Formats: sequence, C-alpha cells, structure tokens
Amino acid sequence: MAREGILIVLSGFSGAGKGSIVKELIERYEQYALSISATTRAPRPGEEEGIAYFFKSREAFQQMIAEDALVEYAQYVDNYYGTPRAYVEEQLAKGKDVLLEIEIQGARKIKEQFPEAVLLFVTTKDIQTLEQRLAGRGTETKEVITQRLKRAVEESEGMEEYDYLVINDQLDTCVKQIHSIIESEHLKTRRNQAFVGKVREELKRFSKGE
Amino acid sequence: MAREGILIVLSGFSGAGKGSIVKELIERYEQYALSISATTRAPRPGEEEGIAYFFKSREAFQQMIAEDALVEYAQYVDNYYGTPRAYVEEQLAKGKDVLLEIEIQGARKIKEQFPEAVLLFVTTKDIQTLEQRLAGRGTETKEVITQRLKRAVEESEGMEEYDYLVINDQLDTCVKQIHSIIESEHLKTRRNQAFVGKVREELKRFSKGE
Repeated sequence: MAREGILIVLSGFSGAGKGSIVKELIERYEQYALSISATTRAPRPGEEEGIAYFFKSREAFQQMIAEDALVEYAQYVDNYYGTPRAYVEEQLAKGKDVLLEIEIQGARKIKEQFPEAVLLFVTTKDIQTLEQRLAGRGTETKEVITQRLKRAVEESEGMEEYDYLVINDQLDTCVKQIHSIIESEHLKTRRNQAFVGKVREELKRFSKGE
Repeated sequence: MAREGILIVLSGFSGAGKGSIVKELIERYEQYALSISATTRAPRPGEEEGIAYFFKSREAFQQMIAEDALVEYAQYVDNYYGTPRAYVEEQLAKGKDVLLEIEIQGARKIKEQFPEAVLLFVTTKDIQTLEQRLAGRGTETKEVITQRLKRAVEESEGMEEYDYLVINDQLDTCVKQIHSIIESEHLKTRRNQAFVGKVREELKRFSKGE
C-alpha cells in the first residue's frame, strides 16, 4: 500500500519528556520529519536559527499570519509561536510523518484543518514522578515547581481531545509505543482508499474469469 | 493504566488466512481469548463440539435468540451462526481482548452494540495471490474458484466499514501488525478515562503544595 504521510501532534506536560521523544523518533526512524516552529521571542543562548526555532520579527510573523503561511499559531506571554505551512505540506506530500511539538490551542487548530492528524498526549506515570522531574537537580524553588504544576493542571484539561495517551516512564519503551501507534494508524482503512479501490477492480476482473 | 478488554472483529476474504492468524494470536499472546460461534449446521468430520463450534439444534438456537443470549447472529444457506454473549462479556470483564472471526453482517451488529470494538479486515496483497490460495493444491475446478471470487466481490463491498486493513502476505508480520494495532488501541485516550481522572486529581493535590 502506498503510504500517505501522517501529521502527528505531540503535546503533554512540560517535564514529561516530549523533547527527548521527538529526538529519538527522528534519529531512529527515517519516516519522521520534525516541523520547526516560528517565533517572535528572542533566541536564548545556544539556540540556533532553523534548529530550535525560526526567529522572526513581530512584523514578519504578522505577515506570515496575513499570508496564511502558518497552519496554526498562538500567543504566549507577548510572543507568537506558529507552524509554517510550507514545510508541513511538502513533507506530507513526500509521504513523511510530520511531528509537531505544540500545545493544546495549536493541537485544536491542527485537528480542524487536518482531521486525519493523530494527536498524542505524553504524561509521566503519575504526578509524583512529574514533580520529581520538574524539581530536576534540586535547583528549583518549591514555588517554581508549584507554578509549573499549576500550568500542568491547565494542560490536563484538554487531555480528552487527544487520540492517544502515552506514558513516558521508560524513554525507549515510550518511543517504540509511539512508533507502533503511527505504524498502526497507517493501516487504518480510511488511509488506504486507493488500495481498497484497486482490490475491488482486480476482484471484478478475476471473478469474470478474465 | 488498568486495561479494559477490547472486542476485536476479524473479517476478510476466505483464503486470506484468518484462521491461521487467530491461531497464532492465541498461541503467542496471553491477552487474547477466542470466541467460539454457535451454529445449526452439522459438524463436519473432525470438528469437535466447543472447539470448531457449539453445535445446536434449530430449536436451541432460536431459544438463544429469544433469550438475547447472542451478541450477533446471521443465517447463511439455511443455517444459523451466532456469537454467544456470556463468553464475550465474561472475558472482556476479565480484561481479555476477545477475538471474533465473523462476517460483515455480524461485524455491523457488533459495532452497533459495542462501539468501542475494533474491526479488522484481512486481505491478501492482491487478488492474483488470493486466486492462487483459493486454487490451493490444484484440486479445485476453475468454476469453484470463480464462485469463491464472486463471493469475495460481495465481501469487498463492506471494506470501508472496517477500522483497519491488514495484508496477510507474511503470516508472522501480519500477526505482529495486528497485535501492534491492538496494543495501540489500548493507548487510546477514551479507553483510559480512569487514568485521566487520576492524573487530574493528583495534579490538583500537588499543585496546592500538599
């Protein structure tokens, strides 16, 4: 069966390990392409143009919005973040599975425009584990951690809107599960209409004894 | 996450190898339970009661229908075939994934009653391969084969109603793909509402710094 590329949205609690998952998927399997977001926020030390983000001026970003050059965008704390349309469409057309690491607002806009997109929510196995990861090397104050957990409360409100829920307990297992979900999605009947049509054509021919 | 059992419908062209697939799934993975159909047709040589089928008189079968003891049933060439409800419900309650090897009419009834059932359609990679398998050891006449292909034309009409399309080219690969589909289905958010609820509860507690 010829494969159509799948648009994959990866969201989840910060601290659940989305970044590591995306990195592993890209490194292990050729079929994935990572979409890089555009943003108006200033680069942090070490962040390279076109790797961390495409850094844009406010004017340039607003022009992209006006030209419908973004499949989704959102504003957080005075800065814009968005997904450039051209890369997504090119990669999907090549049959690549395109990964978007975005938040719930973006995920909703993607699902509206690409109903066949697959939405994944990454979580730790429990909140105690999340708290431990957020606490990191013990350099964060209790207030900062509580702040991040409050953010997670908001993020958890959209969980039901995701197709799949993946627990990142063991990174390797989690990456394999996500890959397995995507491989299974490729076998969905509605992603293989061309194959169904071909089988029917052949059946008609053979059943006439031709 | 505590797992709910999944009801799995396996249909497909006769000759596509459903029987072998079911056998392998049961042998390889403990999580599957095979539902045995009840039928009014006479046992063929070698067919054992409770293994091939539960053999029933016409009266006994009609009583099962009257008592709603079948989750689905259908009539083919003067005989009834049906799926006993008790076994399916018991196994699902235990968390087992229950396999039903049934045809399209049955599959439709299952989907109505169990909207969370997963419907799989098994096919060969093309119809030439199906014809070769139907021809078998060369003992069948061309007419018999053409007859079976005509049956396949009818079967192909319902293909879009199935969730997944699985090609049985290499039995081992096909069995792994089906298992992978079911494992992925277990990660669907809507099958894990209890986990979502638990995460939200914990988040509320932790974010209050308790």
